[in-house]
Amino acid sequence: MTEPNDAYKSLEKRFARAIRVNEAAGWLHWDQSVTMPSGGAEARGEQAAALAEVIHEIIAAPETADLLSAADAGGDAWRSANLREMARRHISATAIPADLVGALARARAASEAAWRDARADNAFHYVLPAFERLVGLAREEAAALGDAFRLNSYDALLEQYDPGRRSADVAPIFDRLRDFLADTVPEIVDRQASWPDDPAVRAPAAVQRKAADALLRSIGFDFEHGRLDDSLHPFSTGTPEDARITARWDEGDALSGLMAVLHEAGHAAYTRGQPAAWRGHMVGEDAGMTAHESQSLVYEMQAGRTHEMAGFLAGLLRQASGGRAPGDAVVARALLRVEPGYIRVEADEATYPLHVVMRFELEQAMIAGDLAPRDLPDAWNAHVEDGLGLPAPDDRNGCLQDIHWYDGAFGYFPTYTLGALAAAQLFQAAEQEIGPDAMAGALARGDYAPLTAWMARAIHEQGRFHESSDALLRAATGSPVSTDAFEAHIRRRYLA
Amino acid sequence: MTEPNDAYKSLEKRFARAIRVNEAAGWLHWDQSVTMPSGGAEARGEQAAALAEVIHEIIAAPETADLLSAADAGGDAWRSANLREMARRHISATAIPADLVGALARARAASEAAWRDARADNAFHYVLPAFERLVGLAREEAAALGDAFRLNSYDALLEQYDPGRRSADVAPIFDRLRDFLADTVPEIVDRQASWPDDPAVRAPAAVQRKAADALLRSIGFDFEHGRLDDSLHPFSTGTPEDARITARWDEGDALSGLMAVLHEAGHAAYTRGQPAAWRGHMVGEDAGMTAHESQSLVYEMQAGRTHEMAGFLAGLLRQASGGRAPGDAVVARALLRVEPGYIRVEADEATYPLHVVMRFELEQAMIAGDLAPRDLPDAWNAHVEDGLGLPAPDDRNGCLQDIHWYDGAFGYFPTYTLGALAAAQLFQAAEQEIGPDAMAGALARGDYAPLTAWMARAIHEQGRFHESSDALLRAATGSPVSTDAFEAHIRRRYLA
Repeated sequence: MTEPNDAYKSLEKRFARAIRVNEAAGWLHWDQSVTMPSGGAEARGEQAAALAEVIHEIIAAPETADLLSAADAGGDAWRSANLREMARRHISATAIPADLVGALARARAASEAAWRDARADNAFHYVLPAFERLVGLAREEAAALGDAFRLNSYDALLEQYDPGRRSADVAPIFDRLRDFLADTVPEIVDRQASWPDDPAVRAPAAVQRKAADALLRSIGFDFEHGRLDDSLHPFSTGTPEDARITARWDEGDALSGLMAVLHEAGHAAYTRGQPAAWRGHMVGEDAGMTAHESQSLVYEMQAGRTHEMAGFLAGLLRQASGGRAPGDAVVARALLRVEPGYIRVEADEATYPLHVVMRFELEQAMIAGDLAPRDLPDAWNAHVEDGLGLPAPDDRNGCLQDIHWYDGAFGYFPTYTLGALAAAQLFQAAEQEIGPDAMAGALARGDYAPLTAWMARAIHEQGRFHESSDALLRAATGSPVSTDAFEAHIRRRYLA
Repeated sequence: MTEPNDAYKSLEKRFARAIRVNEAAGWLHWDQSVTMPSGGAEARGEQAAALAEVIHEIIAAPETADLLSAADAGGDAWRSANLREMARRHISATAIPADLVGALARARAASEAAWRDARADNAFHYVLPAFERLVGLAREEAAALGDAFRLNSYDALLEQYDPGRRSADVAPIFDRLRDFLADTVPEIVDRQASWPDDPAVRAPAAVQRKAADALLRSIGFDFEHGRLDDSLHPFSTGTPEDARITARWDEGDALSGLMAVLHEAGHAAYTRGQPAAWRGHMVGEDAGMTAHESQSLVYEMQAGRTHEMAGFLAGLLRQASGGRAPGDAVVARALLRVEPGYIRVEADEATYPLHVVMRFELEQAMIAGDLAPRDLPDAWNAHVEDGLGLPAPDDRNGCLQDIHWYDGAFGYFPTYTLGALAAAQLFQAAEQEIGPDAMAGALARGDYAPLTAWMARAIHEQGRFHESSDALLRAATGSPVSTDAFEAHIRRRYLA
């Protein structure tokens, strides 16, 4: 095997610094979301901007371009993948002109602020002017990235979240999924019509926090290398050494907080498991949002809503509340209830993809210039009537419900459902290798160790070695993302 | 007034970034001390190192040198002071060769680690080899800084903590202070011999935390712009927008935690009060460690141990504990007890300077090469017998008690006592202007607002405008630091 040359080694050093500064930025964001007093917001924005500029300058520097031209990674496949990832970041960083970066940042801030008011008052017209400006700039951004990556505009955005993913491959998958769910969801709803009308699983925040702590210890979350805190919206952040999650507690629905804990713990497990030998290198990072979401959904949906885990969670809640929590069957039904609704983040796993498919089509049309922002509410509502079979909602429960677009994030939504498909595929493979009885036995004890060990080998430790999440998935399960395992999973769980 | 030139404006931008990155580093340190799980330590070190390198490169860059040569601040005195401070940072950053910086960092880490074991086992010889290496490198560092600043080695170190301070000026002040205390401390001890032998003021941690919260609200700490958290050692950190403090709670001595809260709140008030117009500029930062310590000691010692505050604190403890705390007189005696002891951080305000004078003399001798590290224990113990009038301690209670030297910090100790002298001087001036009755009335209500407003005008809002803390103090009180106000304070409080 040949050795890497000096240019390659210099690149590794440059990117190592960018990665460490980016980790620092992650901690500033954690602090802002968990501990920072409100008065610190503006200064925190300045601190975050300074770190972002430092990172951008390292990655976009002409010296970085020169080193990338001169670099030879030698004969090692991981080093070659590392070089590929460094080049990808450099292309992204240099693709967008500095004045467009600035204009986008300002337009995002204006649109996001207007969106908060618009959603609160159910008044789309509040945000429309700022949103029109933002969509216009996002289209410029997409075109610039498209030029740099030789992709069409929308695919260039997808590429930022899920390298290698192309809309032409996503469309038939999503079409098939929509057809499947169009048939299957009514069938599931029909089955569940006979279920009793259980009261919600209620618990005080302190009881939920105690149960969440026990849940995390049980599944194998390592508190020497992570934390659980409260925040307005659950999220996970950190590094392999210190992977933190946050949650919030709805006293009227104790399961929502615990399932969010499982979801974020899945993300954190991925972060924890990144390849130690490539720590501080781009190839050691995660493989993008589809891969990341697959891990959260393996934890929350695939393993977390089995009958075994339903029983375990019911037991935890009873223990934490001194016996005043509902029985296993009530918890199981609460975890498995399927019901089309307006709000994506409240959707069950069977109807969730219908929300995403709709957003995928709408955002493609906006980026292509085929859907004007002012026509979004009508287009949205038509999709709701058609795809979810519900009457048109008001905008608060319709096109204003998610922050993503108003914050300039286009191309991100598909990864939620691609992640769900990948999760089904990965869980199927893991269950087969571990053995269905051994898996069920572990889950009945709330023990995720066998599952996590499998995912660590198949996904976490692969870092960004593969060129795409499909290549990663192929190596792990034998095939790229498809609807097969997800369809089998839905049939088995809800219609068997 | 003439305008600044472009070189000056470019410098302001460069240093603004360095300041913001340094703030980010401060938050990483806060997190490390308050929230980080233990497993994150090594990665946190890498993140902190990356930020330190970024800051160093900005400040030490040849472009920064060129801009400093070309810069014209125009006719504004604050801009001129800002330019002076930028130049001072540049000189410090470039004075020490890169290989010495690296060697010092490694020697510090080794010595600090060995010190922890040495202190635990009361075994100076554990740390001696690493400490000898560190002292050797610290002497090289001091010589390099001395060349750059045209100062003798020790003064070059002092300059880093208290710009403008010279050991030749400190020595007569400390000599006078030692003479004064040699007479006065025995007299105070004699006076207090008739005091009853009060039991310690005990309280559960939860009661202390509640009292601390009420104390902070009472003195005017703004929780929209700050926090109180627990940590192993109390500290303060942050920015004018978000100035945080930490404390620890000794259940056997409820006053130690509350007084530390006052101490750190004094630091935080200084941080909060920095001049808004110069936010993000070097001249907007604090005026060094003597000035900083003066503010913590105004809060903790000057105001915090008055009879008025003793009564207020006693009331707070009674309120927080449901009436089960001791009376005003017991609290007052606990706050004012004078007793020579071995441990600096446990010392009362009258004997504390004796600890510092001794360290000042010993560290000058070590930096000059007149005291070999291996002779430190004997030299220390001779000073204890002579200065404190106590039998020689073991090394754990002697030369191993403080981390400073073993972490490579020489030239820092004097600022504790210079800060105490400055605090007496500033409090005297504030009391005179506010009026003794108005001050006493406010303190009886636990209200620091008049005091803080005075310090804000005289100290906080001055930033680093003045060339030295003596110049700052002269502007605020009419004279540079001296023992006069401190002597008067000790006589009035303990011997009136």
